[in-house]
Amino acid sequence: MAHILALILTALVVCSPAFALWPLPKDLQTGSKALRLADDFDIQLSVQRAPADLQAAVARTKGYLKTDKLQRLVVGRGENDRTAIKSAKELSSLTVSLTSNETVRSISEEAMDALEDRVETYSLTVPGDGSDATLKANSTLGLFRGLTTFGQLWYEFDDITYTLEAPIQIKDAPAYPYRGFMLDTARNYFPISDIMRTLDAMSWVKINTFHWHIVDSQSFPLEVSGFTEISGKGAYSATDVYTSKDVEEIVSYAAARGIDVMVEVDTPGHTDAIGQSHPEHIACNQGTPWATFANEPPAGQLRFTNTATVNFTTDLIAAVAKMFPSKYFSTGGDELNEACYAADTQTQQELNATGKTLEQALSTFTVSTHQALLKLQKTPVVWEEMVLAHNVTLSNTTIVMVWISSDDVVAVAKKGYRFIHAASDYFYLDCGAGGWVGANPSGNSWCDPFKTWQFSYSFDPTGNLTTEESKLVMGGEHLLWTEQSNQHNLDPIVWPRAASGAELFWTGPGKNISTALPRLHDVAFRMEQRGIGTIPLQPLWCALRPGTCDLTA
Amino acid sequence: MAHILALILTALVVCSPAFALWPLPKDLQTGSKALRLADDFDIQLSVQRAPADLQAAVARTKGYLKTDKLQRLVVGRGENDRTAIKSAKELSSLTVSLTSNETVRSISEEAMDALEDRVETYSLTVPGDGSDATLKANSTLGLFRGLTTFGQLWYEFDDITYTLEAPIQIKDAPAYPYRGFMLDTARNYFPISDIMRTLDAMSWVKINTFHWHIVDSQSFPLEVSGFTEISGKGAYSATDVYTSKDVEEIVSYAAARGIDVMVEVDTPGHTDAIGQSHPEHIACNQGTPWATFANEPPAGQLRFTNTATVNFTTDLIAAVAKMFPSKYFSTGGDELNEACYAADTQTQQELNATGKTLEQALSTFTVSTHQALLKLQKTPVVWEEMVLAHNVTLSNTTIVMVWISSDDVVAVAKKGYRFIHAASDYFYLDCGAGGWVGANPSGNSWCDPFKTWQFSYSFDPTGNLTTEESKLVMGGEHLLWTEQSNQHNLDPIVWPRAASGAELFWTGPGKNISTALPRLHDVAFRMEQRGIGTIPLQPLWCALRPGTCDLTA
Repeated sequence: MAHILALILTALVVCSPAFALWPLPKDLQTGSKALRLADDFDIQLSVQRAPADLQAAVARTKGYLKTDKLQRLVVGRGENDRTAIKSAKELSSLTVSLTSNETVRSISEEAMDALEDRVETYSLTVPGDGSDATLKANSTLGLFRGLTTFGQLWYEFDDITYTLEAPIQIKDAPAYPYRGFMLDTARNYFPISDIMRTLDAMSWVKINTFHWHIVDSQSFPLEVSGFTEISGKGAYSATDVYTSKDVEEIVSYAAARGIDVMVEVDTPGHTDAIGQSHPEHIACNQGTPWATFANEPPAGQLRFTNTATVNFTTDLIAAVAKMFPSKYFSTGGDELNEACYAADTQTQQELNATGKTLEQALSTFTVSTHQALLKLQKTPVVWEEMVLAHNVTLSNTTIVMVWISSDDVVAVAKKGYRFIHAASDYFYLDCGAGGWVGANPSGNSWCDPFKTWQFSYSFDPTGNLTTEESKLVMGGEHLLWTEQSNQHNLDPIVWPRAASGAELFWTGPGKNISTALPRLHDVAFRMEQRGIGTIPLQPLWCALRPGTCDLTA
Repeated sequence: MAHILALILTALVVCSPAFALWPLPKDLQTGSKALRLADDFDIQLSVQRAPADLQAAVARTKGYLKTDKLQRLVVGRGENDRTAIKSAKELSSLTVSLTSNETVRSISEEAMDALEDRVETYSLTVPGDGSDATLKANSTLGLFRGLTTFGQLWYEFDDITYTLEAPIQIKDAPAYPYRGFMLDTARNYFPISDIMRTLDAMSWVKINTFHWHIVDSQSFPLEVSGFTEISGKGAYSATDVYTSKDVEEIVSYAAARGIDVMVEVDTPGHTDAIGQSHPEHIACNQGTPWATFANEPPAGQLRFTNTATVNFTTDLIAAVAKMFPSKYFSTGGDELNEACYAADTQTQQELNATGKTLEQALSTFTVSTHQALLKLQKTPVVWEEMVLAHNVTLSNTTIVMVWISSDDVVAVAKKGYRFIHAASDYFYLDCGAGGWVGANPSGNSWCDPFKTWQFSYSFDPTGNLTTEESKLVMGGEHLLWTEQSNQHNLDPIVWPRAASGAELFWTGPGKNISTALPRLHDVAFRMEQRGIGTIPLQPLWCALRPGTCDLTA
């Protein structure tokens, strides 16, 4: 019996990809030759006036090749490869070049254009005979994506860095332009080192947008020039604040890794933190019972019926927008609570005085804040309620984020807006961790159950959409709301799970979960080697025996 | 409105205990005077021939008083206490003494007797006028519990260590002798530093038993003298092993912190790792489909119908038992899979040859392994199936762990055995994290939902039991099964959540969740100051405003 099992296990190992590419490239050809990196292996950057961030990316890639030391996840961890790799051909060089050197832009510049210009294409060839490997793209961002892929081709055993699948030929491009990750830094604060580390992990799986839900009702940790009193009173402490220097550092760190930072200043709801310094702008400021006036404590929303508040918010959004080079800016717009405004005497007086309905006032407010963004050549992004629950005038360039349910996708598409998949029923990383509203013994997570990587991975971005509607899909993202998160569980909650969305929206849907799992184990282990606190998807026994722990195995 | 809210918030703050005792002492009297530690504050150990572990505990307590630097979790973090604490009386000394110096035993020795001898009682007096504080107990373990309590009395602001509730008088003793925490180190391995850190955190909330589920079917990370081939082949790697030196270190580290290490060698199921070195002892060794032969992969159970296997297991258990000084030893006994034995030719032949039923053979096997424990003066501990699902001869001193469901408690009590609450529906920390068996997109956690601290805390240890049956309750424990855990999410999954069980079984049930929450926030923040990766139970906004985020607030 043991012998038969050994045969079965061998068969399973052979069936699964022997290297850990994630996301899987669009077009991938592999052989079955062993190939090892020469001791003096080098990456030759054949780009005129190579931008500093491209040079840095090459240096990082070379570093990872030395420090990853990722052994194959099989029984014996590469012991059985010993003979093959000792006698393998050696690869001495990877040559990196642009297909045109006409206008060489930096990765950072191109990262700002990834959603429109599709500049992430690359091709990578690793011959099996030891002759030089080549990486080509028509953009430095494409080269960066290719370098990331190159860094995933290799395992280590006995100080030898090798693959068993040479020659390798890859032609790659993303299925969707937007692959994001959202972090909420308002429910609980995260030091910038945590954000930097997260950006690194994101870049390794080719996520290209950091959707930064930076402020909310609980705290306002962003220091905004001209509005410093808001973080002064609304941040959790004087140190729990992102200064303009912090933002600059994060934006440039992200950009150098092919990531655009799309900030969100959620309005008109989720703004009670502004009430700490500007109670005049906030209706039902910390009003009780909170559950009547908000979906979570504290209640408090911008008095958008008030002209001074509209101007204040518009100026605030313009000021924040100037801190972020991204061409996208989210003004939020979720969970507007009407009971709050109904109970607010000032709002009711202003509606009576102007003869406007609440909806009309909301539209005036939104047009004003969005106009400020459009003036700055930025595209407004909103949560789905702004097109499904309200009657608000929006630019037709507006991008919509579907969050409440994936069932709402069709309705958003029917409105004709471009949109991003961020549905709670597939992509909310915080679901399943229990309720947190105090004295509530039977309170579970509102969006139970936990969204497994398998479930996110099985999502169909164009399900129930017509061909025409499908063109409106920008991509998607995983999201972490942080009522019960801080720096200690950031990595374990996010990684490697959020990588499932990264592959779904890069490679496209419909991929096999069983063959993805061993690669995702590799993602987790490689990330861990690089300092991310990833968690195991299974007992190591399973990780070492691809397929064996499948429910049907 | 802001003014009224301020009043409400003040009222809430006053109602909640201003210091962070956890678990709440049995009898607690507090005043409302400010008291600060003098710069030269010292702990005077007035114990003749004070054992080294008691001296070390005093030193650790003094260290925490200096390094905790825990600010009060209120808006302003103690700013409003400034005036009161500047002019507060100073406490210069805590005198620690035994009520009898006749036979002074070490904490470590007494930790072995905590379940039988109730040696955890202490009394602590902190006068409000600056005169010396006193801690008394009739055991060094009691003194250690009191030192732990003393260390929780203080906040820090502006380099002043203070309380606002002097005088304080505490008479304390646990409601239940057993307060445990179980860690599985077989699904995934944990370095000993993680175990040490966990033991520290356990001791801070007066948990007194580390239930170490050390081996299982996935791996056997315990090096056992005379059986080194088992870990040699059954551990995940040569370094993923607990040597006898490691065990000694862990046991002595635990004991010095008032914690008994109760090891579990689960039998006859959950033993496939033994099959790597001893296939002759294992039925359906890695058999497929695994789901037919086991609740999780890999399948493989001890051939308990075989005399050689009975002897092998008995010797193994005796050898492991000798590594652990605890008077308790769990032989497991959960999830015995009958289909595995039905499909095992050897087992069937042996049953035919002996004329025994499977149940009779199981009883012979269990009597043999338990006899080995009884000979070593150890009490056997078993999972509930051994008394509810099987007809096995057991010593009436046997302790039963209820795990499948809290509904099974009554049936176990009716059998007359002492038992420990470890029910999956209240105390399993891994629930709610999604399914992990490979290609299974809609697979959720089998024991959904996530068990919140509030839910564990609301458990009634004697619910549905008669007065007589209630005497059989030894206590209870939280448990972490680690299919999806490693060192990165150990702390975030366990802390502060497992503290809810610690208070439930020390202080007794029926305590108010709303007033517990601010104290539990303090537990989380104090643990974090001491190096535990605790997670937030709520947004910091809520933690700073006790009661405000309750669902009914």
